Amino acid sequence: MTKTRLTLYDTTLRDGQQTQGVQFSTPEKHRIVEALDALGIDYIEGGWPGANPTDSAFFDEVGHTRATVTAFGMTKRAGRSAENDDVLAAVMNAGTKSVCLVGKTHDFHVTAALGITLEENVEHIRASVAHIVSQKREALFDAEHFFDGYKANPDYALTCLHAAYEAGARWIVLCDTNGGALPSEVGRITEAVIASGIPGTHVGIHTHNDTEMAVATTLAAVDAGARQIQGTLNGLGERCGNANLTSLIPTLLLKEPYASTYETGVTLEALEGMTRISRMLDEILNRVPLKQSAYVGSSAFAHKAGLHASAILKNPTTYEHIDPALVGNRRVIPMSNQAGQSNLRRRLAEAGIEVPDKDPALARILDRIKAREAEGYSYDTAQASFELLARDELGMLPEFFEVKRYRVTVERRKNKYNKMISHSEAVVVVKVGDEKKLSVSESMDELGNDRGPVNALSKALAKDLGPYQHMIDDLRLVDFKVRITQGGTEAVTRVIIDSEDGQGRRWSTVGVSANIIDASFEALLDAVRWKLVRDAAPA
Amino acid sequence: MTKTRLTLYDTTLRDGQQTQGVQFSTPEKHRIVEALDALGIDYIEGGWPGANPTDSAFFDEVGHTRATVTAFGMTKRAGRSAENDDVLAAVMNAGTKSVCLVGKTHDFHVTAALGITLEENVEHIRASVAHIVSQKREALFDAEHFFDGYKANPDYALTCLHAAYEAGARWIVLCDTNGGALPSEVGRITEAVIASGIPGTHVGIHTHNDTEMAVATTLAAVDAGARQIQGTLNGLGERCGNANLTSLIPTLLLKEPYASTYETGVTLEALEGMTRISRMLDEILNRVPLKQSAYVGSSAFAHKAGLHASAILKNPTTYEHIDPALVGNRRVIPMSNQAGQSNLRRRLAEAGIEVPDKDPALARILDRIKAREAEGYSYDTAQASFELLARDELGMLPEFFEVKRYRVTVERRKNKYNKMISHSEAVVVVKVGDEKKLSVSESMDELGNDRGPVNALSKALAKDLGPYQHMIDDLRLVDFKVRITQGGTEAVTRVIIDSEDGQGRRWSTVGVSANIIDASFEALLDAVRWKLVRDAAPA
Repeated sequence: MTKTRLTLYDTTLRDGQQTQGVQFSTPEKHRIVEALDALGIDYIEGGWPGANPTDSAFFDEVGHTRATVTAFGMTKRAGRSAENDDVLAAVMNAGTKSVCLVGKTHDFHVTAALGITLEENVEHIRASVAHIVSQKREALFDAEHFFDGYKANPDYALTCLHAAYEAGARWIVLCDTNGGALPSEVGRITEAVIASGIPGTHVGIHTHNDTEMAVATTLAAVDAGARQIQGTLNGLGERCGNANLTSLIPTLLLKEPYASTYETGVTLEALEGMTRISRMLDEILNRVPLKQSAYVGSSAFAHKAGLHASAILKNPTTYEHIDPALVGNRRVIPMSNQAGQSNLRRRLAEAGIEVPDKDPALARILDRIKAREAEGYSYDTAQASFELLARDELGMLPEFFEVKRYRVTVERRKNKYNKMISHSEAVVVVKVGDEKKLSVSESMDELGNDRGPVNALSKALAKDLGPYQHMIDDLRLVDFKVRITQGGTEAVTRVIIDSEDGQGRRWSTVGVSANIIDASFEALLDAVRWKLVRDAAPA
Repeated sequence: MTKTRLTLYDTTLRDGQQTQGVQFSTPEKHRIVEALDALGIDYIEGGWPGANPTDSAFFDEVGHTRATVTAFGMTKRAGRSAENDDVLAAVMNAGTKSVCLVGKTHDFHVTAALGITLEENVEHIRASVAHIVSQKREALFDAEHFFDGYKANPDYALTCLHAAYEAGARWIVLCDTNGGALPSEVGRITEAVIASGIPGTHVGIHTHNDTEMAVATTLAAVDAGARQIQGTLNGLGERCGNANLTSLIPTLLLKEPYASTYETGVTLEALEGMTRISRMLDEILNRVPLKQSAYVGSSAFAHKAGLHASAILKNPTTYEHIDPALVGNRRVIPMSNQAGQSNLRRRLAEAGIEVPDKDPALARILDRIKAREAEGYSYDTAQASFELLARDELGMLPEFFEVKRYRVTVERRKNKYNKMISHSEAVVVVKVGDEKKLSVSESMDELGNDRGPVNALSKALAKDLGPYQHMIDDLRLVDFKVRITQGGTEAVTRVIIDSEDGQGRRWSTVGVSANIIDASFEALLDAVRWKLVRDAAPA
C-alpha cells in the first residue's frame, strides 16, 4: 500500500526563539540545522531576516542542506507595493529558495490591529505572495489566528486563504496563534478549508500548547487532511510552546493508524537519534532536560512501581507502549535491584571495562554513585567522571599525579589609563612521582582580555605534568556548564566540563562543591585524568 | 439549560507518587488534600493502605473533607477469598467511604502476569467488588490496560467490566495504563463500553501522557460519554505523568463546548486558585515550576514577539485565549530585542517609570539593550537590571556608591590535620560620597565550610555601604544561574542572580563577562543598586 507523504516543517529557530529567555547564537543555529537535517525534516525556518541581526547572519552563513531552509517575514505593509516594502525586501534578500509570510485572516485583527479595510488586507496577501512567486521562490502563507478568524467570519477567513493560494502559495498554513483552539474544532475547520477548494496536499497546521493539546490538535488536522506539520524541537516556543515535533514524529512513525497510513522524511533509523537531538537542544539552552517528556524524557521508560518493575523484567511489552530503543531512549529500573547491576555492567562495557556478572565491586560502585548523587553529582552526562569512579573502585585507575594545593586570584581595578580591568592568576602545585612542580598562569587571550579564574587554573594545571605533559598538550576545554543544585540540605554548585582532544574525542566530567572554583577544578582534574587513562594507561 | 455533571477524581497522592523521586510525607499529603478540597475535587485517592507506611498513616489522620477520600488497592489474589485476603483487608481497614480496586482486563496480562485462567480473573473482580459493597462502601473498579485489552480481546475486556458493574461498582474506570492509546481510539472504545450497557454516568477515564496527549485523550472519552475524570495536579505520575488536572479543569470551565455543556465541583471563583495550587505542589516537591505549563506557567501569558506585544497593548484578547486572571495567573511582557517601543513603555510603567510616547530616550534604551544582548546579556528574566539600565539612560539612577576595586582569592590546600580544605577571601573597596571604605570578608558558613568566591564578594560588598547599609541588611542571594553564551565571537559567562529582601520582594539581575567572577560581581552590584533605588531613591 502506498503511504501518504506528510511534510515536516521545523520552526525551532524562529517561533522557538520566541520562548522567554531563548536567543540562539549563529553557531548554535548551525548545530540545530545540522541535527534537523540529519533527522530528515523537510523545511527549516531559520528566522526573520532583517528583524534580528543574528537571523540575518544565520542566512548569510547557512551551507548546503537537504532540507529547504526558509526565511520568515510578513505580508507587505500598507502604503507601499510589495516590491518597495523594505521589510519584505530584507526577507527576500536572504536568498532562500522558500519564503513564508504571515498575514491576517481574522477580520477583527485586520481592522483593529492593522487599521486597514478587509479588502486591502486580501490585496496585501495576494500581492505579497505574487511577489515571491514572481521572484521564482516558493511561497508559504501562514494564516495568523485562522481558527478564531474562521469562527468569527468564515467567509472572510477563507477569502484570505484563497487569495494566497490563487496567487501561487505552495502551502497555506492554518495557525492557531493564541493556542486556544481545541482538537475537535481544528479538525472540523480544517475539513471545511479543504472542502472550500484548497487541496489537503497544500494545507499545513501550526498549533500552540496553551491547553496542553498542541500534539493532539496537530493530529486532528492531519486526520482532517492537512499534509504539512509545523512544530519545534522539545515544543519550544512562545508562551506554552509550539506543537512538539519530538513527540509528534515518534507517534507518526510508530503508532497506528499513522504508521501504516503516512510517511515522512524521517526514517526509523534516524528516529533513533530523537533522544540525542532533544538533549542537545537542552544542552544548548542550558536547561535541565524534562524527565517526563514523552518518548525522550529520562523518566519516559522508568518503572518505579514494584508491580510494574517486576512485570517489566518478565516481559517489557507489558508496561511499555513502545520499545525505548526506537527513539534512542532507554529503560530505567531503580538501581537497588538486580536490573540496576546489569544496567551498570552495560555502561561499563561501553567504556571498555568488562566486569563479571555478580562481581561484588558492582554493588560498591552503585553505592558510591548513589551517595555522590545525593551530594549533587550527576553521572547521566558526565560519562568520563563515571568511568573514573568505577575504575577507582575496580583498582584500574593509576595515580598519575597528586595535586598538593592551588591558589587563584581575581583582581579588578583601574589600569594606568584609568580603565577598569580584570586580572586572573592561578598557582597549581602537583607532585608527579617524587617531583614537586609549581606552575603559575594568568588568563589572557590573544587580545589581552582576561578569561577568568577557571581558564587560569586550567592553564596552570596543564602547564607541566612532566612525563604526561605531551599527552595533554592537545586537550581543550570546549564547554562549561554550571548549575546550582541541592546537595543534602545545602545549595551546591555542579560544574560540567566538556573537553576535546586532537583525536576528535569529546568527553564530559563533573565537579560539585559549595565553592564554584573547587567544583570547576574537580571537573578539570577529571578531564585530565580521563585523557591520561585513554592515552597512557596499560588497561 | 441544565449542565451535565462531570466528576473529578484526583490521584496525585497515589499515582502521582509513582513519579521518580517523589515521596510525600504525611503533613505534605494533608496540605495537598486541603488544597484539592478547597478547589472542589470530588474524590481524593490517598494511597494504598498497607503497601506503604506513609499511606497508612495518612488514612489514620485524615480529617473531615468535602471530597470523598478513597483508598486504593487491588482485587483479591488467587487461593483465598476476598474476606481472607490480607492485602485487601488492609485497604478496607483504612475505613474510607470509598474504595478503588485495580484489576486486570487484558487477557494476556491475566495469563502471563497473574498466571490464572480468564474465568478465575473475572470471578476475582466480582468477588472483590461484592465484598466492598457488602461492607457498605462505595466501590470503584480501575480496569488496568483496558484499551490494549479491548483491542486484543474486546469480549473478554467487556466481560471484566460487566462483572465489576454487576457486582455493584459505582464507577468503572477505563485505564490506559501504559499511556499508548491515542485520543481517537479511546473515544471509539469508550463509546463501545457505553453501548455494551454500562451507562456513561458510571464510566471513568484514567490516562497517561506517554504520547503527550493525556489531556486530549481524557476529553475524547468525555466526548464519548465518560463522566468521571481521573488525573493529578501538574500531571504528576509515573513515566511521563498522568492526565494533568491543572490543564483539564480550566479547559472544562472556560473553553467551549465544555463550559456550556458540563459542570464540575470547581467554581469559577475556586479556579482563580489554580496557579497558586500548582506552585504549591512544586514547592512541596522542591521543583522549579515549569514556565511553559498550560494556563498556570509563568510564561503561559508571556508575549515576547514585538508584533504580538504591541497588539496586546491595544487589546489583550488579540493574543490571549483566556484572561490570565481567571486561573490566577498574569500577563508578562518580557524585554528582548524583538520587542518594540510600546512594549518597553509598558515594562517601564510596571516599574513605576512613566515615559511619554515617542520620547527619544526610548530608542536609546532599546539600542543599549540590543547592544548588550549582542554581548550576551539577557533582560527577559533580569527585569531589575533592565530597570537600572533604563533609569540610567533616563537620568533617574542616583550613584549611591562607586566600586574602586576588588580582589578575591580562593586557596585549596591541606590543613594541619592533613585534610584538603578550601578558603575564599574577598576585598572590596568602595567610595560612598567622599569616604573610601575597604571591606574584607571570608566565606564560611556556620559549619565552617567554604561557600566560595561569589559568597565572599557578596559579603564584602554588603558589609559597609555607610548611610545605605541599613537598606541592604535584609538582602539575600537566593538563586544563582550561570551559562556560557556567545558574546560577539568569544564565549562569555552570563550570571543571573535572584535576590530577596525582608519585605518579600524578589528580583533578578544579570552580569556578563569572560570572567565568571566579574560577571557575578556585576549581577551582585545590580542587585544592591536595585534595592537602594526601591528603598532610598527619591524616584
